Amino acid sequence: MFGAIEAGGTKFVCAIADEAGIICREERFETTDPDTTLGRVLAFLRQARSQFGALDALGLASFGPVELRPGSPRFGCIGGTPKPGWSSTDILGALGSEFGGPIGFDTDVNAAALAEHRWGAARDVRDLVYLTVGTGIGGGVIVDGTPIHGLMHPEIGHVFPRRHPLDVEFRGVCPFHHDCIEGVAAGPAIIARSGAPLSALRHDHPQWEIEADYLGQLCAQLVLTLSPQRIVLGGGVMAQTRLFPLIRGAMTSWLGGYIDRYELRDGLDQYVVPPELADQAGVRGAVALAMDAARAAGNATAI
Amino acid sequence: MFGAIEAGGTKFVCAIADEAGIICREERFETTDPDTTLGRVLAFLRQARSQFGALDALGLASFGPVELRPGSPRFGCIGGTPKPGWSSTDILGALGSEFGGPIGFDTDVNAAALAEHRWGAARDVRDLVYLTVGTGIGGGVIVDGTPIHGLMHPEIGHVFPRRHPLDVEFRGVCPFHHDCIEGVAAGPAIIARSGAPLSALRHDHPQWEIEADYLGQLCAQLVLTLSPQRIVLGGGVMAQTRLFPLIRGAMTSWLGGYIDRYELRDGLDQYVVPPELADQAGVRGAVALAMDAARAAGNATAI
Repeated sequence: MFGAIEAGGTKFVCAIADEAGIICREERFETTDPDTTLGRVLAFLRQARSQFGALDALGLASFGPVELRPGSPRFGCIGGTPKPGWSSTDILGALGSEFGGPIGFDTDVNAAALAEHRWGAARDVRDLVYLTVGTGIGGGVIVDGTPIHGLMHPEIGHVFPRRHPLDVEFRGVCPFHHDCIEGVAAGPAIIARSGAPLSALRHDHPQWEIEADYLGQLCAQLVLTLSPQRIVLGGGVMAQTRLFPLIRGAMTSWLGGYIDRYELRDGLDQYVVPPELADQAGVRGAVALAMDAARAAGNATAI
Repeated sequence: MFGAIEAGGTKFVCAIADEAGIICREERFETTDPDTTLGRVLAFLRQARSQFGALDALGLASFGPVELRPGSPRFGCIGGTPKPGWSSTDILGALGSEFGGPIGFDTDVNAAALAEHRWGAARDVRDLVYLTVGTGIGGGVIVDGTPIHGLMHPEIGHVFPRRHPLDVEFRGVCPFHHDCIEGVAAGPAIIARSGAPLSALRHDHPQWEIEADYLGQLCAQLVLTLSPQRIVLGGGVMAQTRLFPLIRGAMTSWLGGYIDRYELRDGLDQYVVPPELADQAGVRGAVALAMDAARAAGNATAI
């Protein structure tokens, strides 16, 4: 059995999965302060152990920024974050102190990308981006089947979009950059600009066009830099599925016909897609991380 | 012995290298129409064969857009390009008709990135971006030691920068997008805006600040999306080495302190760096492609 923790900025999801990756127990709770939140995680794991016996591996999919380099003294620690109390929290250490087995560890969005790649909307490709558009904007990137880290990990939510002509007055809500993509297109930006979430706005409200243009521009930038074979768009804002055709149209307009590919013309409906795993993507990604960690540990033993 | 062809938009470089990747013969000529240019390449290879005997493999590093998917009917063909006569040219086929051995094939900028990774300014990292800023802007991306392709290949020169406040009147010179990064920051844009290349402009001319801001913004966007461990900046415009500290400063300003990493603070001089291979990066990348193709063919035989 595998333990899986999706440590999100607004909610935590804890789960136990079997050797096929099927979740057989799950608990969700709000993210509050680190002590309370991680205490609930440890209680879940202890209770699971008493029910299922020892776990073969854990997977931890954490909100970022987070230190992913195993050699770093801050490996497993949250970086500077606006979330009160969480900066410098050793989230991996908190689990490691309780659990001695292998632990797979990555960002929540890289894990969600991995889950959509393994079991969801991007099963048939090797290179993809998973974007979540909700209380924030985050992006996970898979290249040749593996999440990328590099210097740290992608922080796609903080790229700088060109401002929409109807939106030049809006300052943006990101505490770091004001009008990065998260600052102008995540849920709180929509409410700050238009006084209501998308779901409460008429279809002819300019907010729809502004939102689609920003997200279409983001998708176009990702095509030009990362060249993914698919872009999966999830998160609370994307529950408004009429955004999909609007975003595809905006992306096409931003690219200006430069990238000559079937996938960006006739195949566009299969290029920018909703997730298949819905709100299970993050926790199932944590399951995938646990399974990979168990396999890596097995291989290490075999050598 | 290996044959190596750098097929650039302005010049071609043909070379022969030994088993250590050292170039022992080289020829450079201007890119004109496809028949003339590829005729000179074939003449070079025939002459090399008569001097050195059969070649073990060829490497071809081509300007893009180009079809890199071996399964595609257009594999090895140039895509739509403003370069007269070159759209749809089967550049790989032209070499394959003359040469029966293994051929390694990638974009010129991916190859240059590979060369800087293997023998140059990015030997000690696994994830890097190589940008060339010259008559155009191109970017090669290496993730975990391997050039990325995905849907096509990165086309970093065509991302959309936010316009500099001193540059809002300038239309940009890209025939596809007007004011993408290539349209506002490559050599022809500098001349169109300021009437002269950077080398002829006083150090207090605003063009310097505008150029550094656009390239610093591009580097910041790449940090946020690709998370490279190093960015190598080459090409004719970057021969003005006083751009480097200006670009590093602009990148820092664009990132707004969000990515908390030694490499982006005290280590910044080693993060955004000039190439070590200078104008040999492309052709040595083609050598690396040839060596990898020979190794892959050898492995295939061994299996």
